[in-house]
Amino acid sequence: MALMTGEQYIESIRKMHMQVYMFGKKVESPVDDPILRPSLNSVRMTYDLAQKPEYQDLMTATSNLTGKRVNRFTNIHQSTEDLVKKVKMQRLLGQQTAACFQRCVGMDAFNAVYSTTYEIDQKYGTTYHENFKKFAAYVQENDLTVDGAMTDPKGDRSRAPHAQEDPDLFLRVVERRPDGIVVRGAKAHQTGALNSHEIIIMPTISMGPEDKDYAVSFAVPMDAEGIFMIIGRQSCDTRKLEGSELDVGNAEFGGVEALVVFEDVFVPNDRIFLCGETEFAGMMVERFAGYHRQSYGGCKVGVGDVLIGAAAVAADYNGCAKASHIKDKLIEMTHLNETLYCCGIACSAEGHPTASGNYLIDLLLANVCKQNVTRFPYEIARLAEDIAGGVVVTAPAEADLKDPKLGPYVEKYFKAAPGVSVENRFRILRLIENLTLGTAAVGYRTESLHGAGSPQAQRIMIARQGNLPMKKELAKKIAHVKE
Amino acid sequence: MALMTGEQYIESIRKMHMQVYMFGKKVESPVDDPILRPSLNSVRMTYDLAQKPEYQDLMTATSNLTGKRVNRFTNIHQSTEDLVKKVKMQRLLGQQTAACFQRCVGMDAFNAVYSTTYEIDQKYGTTYHENFKKFAAYVQENDLTVDGAMTDPKGDRSRAPHAQEDPDLFLRVVERRPDGIVVRGAKAHQTGALNSHEIIIMPTISMGPEDKDYAVSFAVPMDAEGIFMIIGRQSCDTRKLEGSELDVGNAEFGGVEALVVFEDVFVPNDRIFLCGETEFAGMMVERFAGYHRQSYGGCKVGVGDVLIGAAAVAADYNGCAKASHIKDKLIEMTHLNETLYCCGIACSAEGHPTASGNYLIDLLLANVCKQNVTRFPYEIARLAEDIAGGVVVTAPAEADLKDPKLGPYVEKYFKAAPGVSVENRFRILRLIENLTLGTAAVGYRTESLHGAGSPQAQRIMIARQGNLPMKKELAKKIAHVKE
Amino acid sequence: MALMTGEQYIESIRKMHMQVYMFGKKVESPVDDPILRPSLNSVRMTYDLAQKPEYQDLMTATSNLTGKRVNRFTNIHQSTEDLVKKVKMQRLLGQQTAACFQRCVGMDAFNAVYSTTYEIDQKYGTTYHENFKKFAAYVQENDLTVDGAMTDPKGDRSRAPHAQEDPDLFLRVVERRPDGIVVRGAKAHQTGALNSHEIIIMPTISMGPEDKDYAVSFAVPMDAEGIFMIIGRQSCDTRKLEGSELDVGNAEFGGVEALVVFEDVFVPNDRIFLCGETEFAGMMVERFAGYHRQSYGGCKVGVGDVLIGAAAVAADYNGCAKASHIKDKLIEMTHLNETLYCCGIACSAEGHPTASGNYLIDLLLANVCKQNVTRFPYEIARLAEDIAGGVVVTAPAEADLKDPKLGPYVEKYFKAAPGVSVENRFRILRLIENLTLGTAAVGYRTESLHGAGSPQAQRIMIARQGNLPMKKELAKKIAHVKE
Amino acid sequence: MALMTGEQYIESIRKMHMQVYMFGKKVESPVDDPILRPSLNSVRMTYDLAQKPEYQDLMTATSNLTGKRVNRFTNIHQSTEDLVKKVKMQRLLGQQTAACFQRCVGMDAFNAVYSTTYEIDQKYGTTYHENFKKFAAYVQENDLTVDGAMTDPKGDRSRAPHAQEDPDLFLRVVERRPDGIVVRGAKAHQTGALNSHEIIIMPTISMGPEDKDYAVSFAVPMDAEGIFMIIGRQSCDTRKLEGSELDVGNAEFGGVEALVVFEDVFVPNDRIFLCGETEFAGMMVERFAGYHRQSYGGCKVGVGDVLIGAAAVAADYNGCAKASHIKDKLIEMTHLNETLYCCGIACSAEGHPTASGNYLIDLLLANVCKQNVTRFPYEIARLAEDIAGGVVVTAPAEADLKDPKLGPYVEKYFKAAPGVSVENRFRILRLIENLTLGTAAVGYRTESLHGAGSPQAQRIMIARQGNLPMKKELAKKIAHVKE
Repeated sequence: MALMTGEQYIESIRKMHMQVYMFGKKVESPVDDPILRPSLNSVRMTYDLAQKPEYQDLMTATSNLTGKRVNRFTNIHQSTEDLVKKVKMQRLLGQQTAACFQRCVGMDAFNAVYSTTYEIDQKYGTTYHENFKKFAAYVQENDLTVDGAMTDPKGDRSRAPHAQEDPDLFLRVVERRPDGIVVRGAKAHQTGALNSHEIIIMPTISMGPEDKDYAVSFAVPMDAEGIFMIIGRQSCDTRKLEGSELDVGNAEFGGVEALVVFEDVFVPNDRIFLCGETEFAGMMVERFAGYHRQSYGGCKVGVGDVLIGAAAVAADYNGCAKASHIKDKLIEMTHLNETLYCCGIACSAEGHPTASGNYLIDLLLANVCKQNVTRFPYEIARLAEDIAGGVVVTAPAEADLKDPKLGPYVEKYFKAAPGVSVENRFRILRLIENLTLGTAAVGYRTESLHGAGSPQAQRIMIARQGNLPMKKELAKKIAHVKE
Repeated sequence: MALMTGEQYIESIRKMHMQVYMFGKKVESPVDDPILRPSLNSVRMTYDLAQKPEYQDLMTATSNLTGKRVNRFTNIHQSTEDLVKKVKMQRLLGQQTAACFQRCVGMDAFNAVYSTTYEIDQKYGTTYHENFKKFAAYVQENDLTVDGAMTDPKGDRSRAPHAQEDPDLFLRVVERRPDGIVVRGAKAHQTGALNSHEIIIMPTISMGPEDKDYAVSFAVPMDAEGIFMIIGRQSCDTRKLEGSELDVGNAEFGGVEALVVFEDVFVPNDRIFLCGETEFAGMMVERFAGYHRQSYGGCKVGVGDVLIGAAAVAADYNGCAKASHIKDKLIEMTHLNETLYCCGIACSAEGHPTASGNYLIDLLLANVCKQNVTRFPYEIARLAEDIAGGVVVTAPAEADLKDPKLGPYVEKYFKAAPGVSVENRFRILRLIENLTLGTAAVGYRTESLHGAGSPQAQRIMIARQGNLPMKKELAKKIAHVKE
Repeated sequence: MALMTGEQYIESIRKMHMQVYMFGKKVESPVDDPILRPSLNSVRMTYDLAQKPEYQDLMTATSNLTGKRVNRFTNIHQSTEDLVKKVKMQRLLGQQTAACFQRCVGMDAFNAVYSTTYEIDQKYGTTYHENFKKFAAYVQENDLTVDGAMTDPKGDRSRAPHAQEDPDLFLRVVERRPDGIVVRGAKAHQTGALNSHEIIIMPTISMGPEDKDYAVSFAVPMDAEGIFMIIGRQSCDTRKLEGSELDVGNAEFGGVEALVVFEDVFVPNDRIFLCGETEFAGMMVERFAGYHRQSYGGCKVGVGDVLIGAAAVAADYNGCAKASHIKDKLIEMTHLNETLYCCGIACSAEGHPTASGNYLIDLLLANVCKQNVTRFPYEIARLAEDIAGGVVVTAPAEADLKDPKLGPYVEKYFKAAPGVSVENRFRILRLIENLTLGTAAVGYRTESLHGAGSPQAQRIMIARQGNLPMKKELAKKIAHVKE
Repeated sequence: MALMTGEQYIESIRKMHMQVYMFGKKVESPVDDPILRPSLNSVRMTYDLAQKPEYQDLMTATSNLTGKRVNRFTNIHQSTEDLVKKVKMQRLLGQQTAACFQRCVGMDAFNAVYSTTYEIDQKYGTTYHENFKKFAAYVQENDLTVDGAMTDPKGDRSRAPHAQEDPDLFLRVVERRPDGIVVRGAKAHQTGALNSHEIIIMPTISMGPEDKDYAVSFAVPMDAEGIFMIIGRQSCDTRKLEGSELDVGNAEFGGVEALVVFEDVFVPNDRIFLCGETEFAGMMVERFAGYHRQSYGGCKVGVGDVLIGAAAVAADYNGCAKASHIKDKLIEMTHLNETLYCCGIACSAEGHPTASGNYLIDLLLANVCKQNVTRFPYEIARLAEDIAGGVVVTAPAEADLKDPKLGPYVEKYFKAAPGVSVENRFRILRLIENLTLGTAAVGYRTESLHGAGSPQAQRIMIARQGNLPMKKELAKKIAHVKE
């Protein structure tokens, strides 16, 4: 099968029988739901752009499994060039959607599971790597979107998985059958689950011998028996129900998060990638997190490009683009955004092959990348709000602008730079609102903080990877310290 | 008349005939509108607390006009002690509402207009100061809430008021009658207009001789003939319509912004405080802005206290309050918040009397105060989101929590620290969402940026007030420079 | 005796028999040593300014002990006004010296010991407060400079004083006699010791019952038998020996640090202020540290004024004062510097009386003040280096400028803004070098970090004083949490 | 000729007849001068490491001109891999010297001049590229160190070169002869001039048609007739004369800056690379600056490694390495340092070939790199001072430590962590002092600010390269703006 078109993708998701709940109700057709649809559109962009000749090089790759051209989101990275292209593809998609396009987690899970299963098999003679390659080829062949799911609810943070009062607070094997396993638990904060054909489960932390049932990785279709989702609330989520394209800021694209519940879901043997080899849980986590921290050096930079552009347009429309402090703020935003990009590129260019042959990013630099992502988007957002002016939070609704009585007053009193329509001014202001306070702020701000691990998780990795002993030796040598 | 109770205040507003529009429709009873009511409740708190004996000292003062006990929000500051108490009162109200309580603009306008009218009269033999004292006594006597309105739409930022294509883009006198004047224009970003009995209009910038019609200050009732308001949209505004007290985070308090349109409004002579004396426009602006920049060193600190508290509770509820990085972040939040408070206190303690006898803050320090307010709340908010965790933007709706089928799953998988109910955890998370992304973020973040003047406005004042020539002399003396 | 003139002060110090060592040698006449003299001149300024009528109000106060006019540096604060004036006096002196003028530690020790001795006596019926008042009156009467010494060497940081391998690593009582005690140990980082008539010793940490011998406070003359000092090295210290007034940047003023060793020094009974009442050690430390953290909101602001002025002059002399980014950096420097001042003023204005009647600053705000002082001077210094240009570290020596052969080339190639002499340009550049990299950087940067306690010490106090439980209650109330 | 050993390099410099002045006197043997020698040692390290097999790959490359193995510092970059290796080589050398090793400017000039001369020749049919290739091959063949000199004195910043009162304030052609040209002027802030065999001159700004005489680039030996140098003063420079290896912190390595004066120096025709083609001045400047801004993402990171290591050792020696705030500060230092490295790597990995075939870095990212270098080393230095403690600026001299009478007291009272000698503690503290306040602070701090262009220069380039129009289009597309 060839790469899917965006339209084919939408229809393929429509055919699935996912169980989706929101606001206490079952969503009968998630594909057509006004709150959920924009998130589907974001994923669709990963299909649409792959069809365009000008993006072939970034959006597709040649599979090491099948030798065929596949969407890069399903690719096993074969070189540092692949790692760099991944980041560039992500920046491109961030620019085109100003939202989370969700398909990265699958790609990052693919590459983490690929190399980890290889090393498990080497040690234990298991066949996880073969299982995974078969699954990966199937995904590539059918150009599927895959969710990569890591974060468990975790319950009491001071206790290990096996020591929780409720044993399900980390996803676990509850039954072992000849033909497979049955699992129970949940995965939280799943942005792309809703729009994925398949889901790869991974453990969320390093584990000890007693956590055997929790050291489990596998893939199942998103509409497998026993899986259901509860959609989380977002700032301004229901504004999408009001029918104003203008007021939502970004009418086409978005992202939503779901709790994915696994209520005794059966996993056939050939879809299992880890089952009980507890000492490999940490490796899988570290690699997935590493890849995903790299990802943020691409996608959030692309969204940042849109926000910088929006602020610049707002300055034009407000009529103050020539003020030196405005120019300087746009430079600062650009500087911060490109610093993130530097980190994304650097951890990719400094990648290296794993034992399995695929390429892993430089872990230290990937963590440094993500750590900066927990800071700079907030400052970029603050500067965007600064440039936009207070009107970004006080502009009236489209209904006022279009109202026969009120409209003329809105047109009159919100007029700024000559030649700019109030509608266009409002459109840009709403986009900035969307990215700094609205639904997209969830992705651009809070997800930048917590996605792929909260700030402290990166600091722990930076401490671990920073090679302080070597640096101490350098200092002692220069200072002529003899101990 | 004695000080009003909160209930009396609500009823007094209900009796008014304000023209309020929202989403293209007239709001028939603003007092009962679920989107607007929380903002009224915030103002009400200024009445409720004034009734409590323990807050008498902060909430009330003895009028220099009438000798009677009045609400401090209507007081003319008589000492630096008064200025300091103002800031403390504002912190208290921020703590009690976690929102903008709106009555400050009136107080700040009162004090700016009081001293400026005195100086105009000294120069021109006008009677503006008498007019204003009469008005002020009336307000004190009836314990009214007054909006102070400064910001004009401004149109083309590169042109003076009189040089705009549309002459109404700054509020102006369109007719002079024997008994008064008729004005036209609008004031933007008016947070408290909706909940005020009266409104004081002031010019928004320094003016030249040709701007005579624009150099105008006066007071009229909010329901005067020809005034109407269009309410601006806020992040998450319509969530208040959904009926979930939990989901809105702060069910009781809020603030909304309106465009207030003056469509040929008549102002009687004894309500005029400035009319054509263009060179005093700048003084009125500078003083009002100065007082209002001081205000932010009180109110936003109070809101910050709530956000710090909410983050600390979230850490408790998440079960990670003992982590050293969490403790350190709470210290940082406190440090930043108290730095703002220091600035609020310092510009008050360093105040001095004007020619009219009332007290003005130290203008340099008040601008420094506000400049910090354009920065630190953003960092405090970022740290709050950090401590809260990703769940702050992915938690499902109350409807899911209360649903018979979904509720048990939500209860099961969002359980964290032992002994904490999921409902309480959600309540605190929603409050943090409200303050960092929702309706209250408009007040805590964007208003902190732009209220009382955008960051660059303070920088200009800091440059002007910073006495660089004196500092250069100090340096030359130390360096033994002889020129 | 009246207040001393600066000249009398110098001569009074010259008459003392202090034991001072530097670079492995005894300094025979510290008063005339080119490295040490500038530090003496800084203290002298506290005498010179007190003689000037225009500074009477700031520099002097009426003693509560004798009713006479005394130098404010020897005063017991009687009001918040006194606390505010203290900060203003310190800013003034920082402006006049661009250095540490050292006399603050004595003033801060005075006020901490005054109130603490009162409370010890209340509990134990001791006579420490009387002892101290007698000593204080003597100091006031003779207008003496007093060093306040707190920091012990501390040895192994993980052990209490009594548990150190070497028992002398905290200063302690080694013998108790009928007429007094004998002490041994050392005090580190003593900036003003060298230029003081007397020294007050205080403990450096809270203590437990086993630390009885270490809980000791007293005063002795700086030339008491058994005391000697070893001067610490400073960046660029020996440049003062080279004979170029220009090259040192600030030829007149400075500050140096010494280790003060107490080799079995006798203290008569009436000079003892604490001896064994271990539970009061912490109170004395906390109050002294509090006062001293307030101090930094004055003195460093004054030095900052000079550095801002120097940067502004450098911009003039470089010929780029009109560039918008230069102006903006000067604004930022001013903003940061005035923020520190706000903190100094605020913790003073919010002071309150102790049981003994003297006034204590607000401890939370004083710690916030000092915490900011550990940050902003570094950024101010960075901006000063930015404005000054690379020439601040590459300009040749005065000897080159004055050389008959080289001078003309230096004059030719270091010429910048028209009409500015190269010598004046170099003078200002050297002053900036002095404050950012040279001897004064020790005071402006590192001392800002570590003086009155390192940054972490303030964070601990902010945590303790920040009243987090109250803030949690505020948040729960707003969020309608019912536990 | 093979690559030189370090010893051969020293001797080759010794043989030259450079004219060096310092403190108003001629330095007869710069190679043996205690103030200047450490800077020579730093350059020597570029020869020593090139001899070591383990560093062959980083330190050497195969010349595109001769096909032979050459020192990478003389190489013309042939790929992005070369660009990346350049940065890694620079980090290595920063780690080994904790100083500026000076040879980068030549390498950066080489690559800027190589591609620019090619493009000039393309346009004008000149032979500059051939001239340069011949010169470059000669340098490679003899393994020479080359200074790259750009910064002119600039005089009145508001005037173009030709419009200065003194025409020599930008280096210029004063005579044109058949066999060459005669130049006059000076180049400021030259760190490596003293230790270089040759010097390449480049213009310092973009030029207009009237600046023809100033648009000149060429190479001459450092001891050519008419060249002399005046060494600039550095913080703590003369401490190196005092004879204490301990007190200087870094006894072996350093860097010094000189004003290089060209007093009518003759340049033969085949050493000229630009002469009058004014429109190419800007290209040469931009490319050199770009390469040099990349360089800072390597060298300063290496120095940062030493400073981080020194702070970590100081924490060990102080006995407080286990405190969580100390660990966190070391993580922050590492994070900031690696962010700089990311920028250095990214602008290299994103390089591209010029028309001449050599590789140019990504200009936007190189400017972003340098902009971060103007900030983060200052914060790293502040954190190092924080961790080191106040003792870093109060520790006494080695002479005190070694003195028979004082030594025991110093040993006793500066003892900290068990088992650590006071001498070693002092050695590390002096290294930190050296890097934050002393001679090396000139390189690590001020040079990080101003080297390769001051912060504002990068901001201008970021504005120019940031492609704001494209970003605006992205925003308009997302917001559905139709203009």
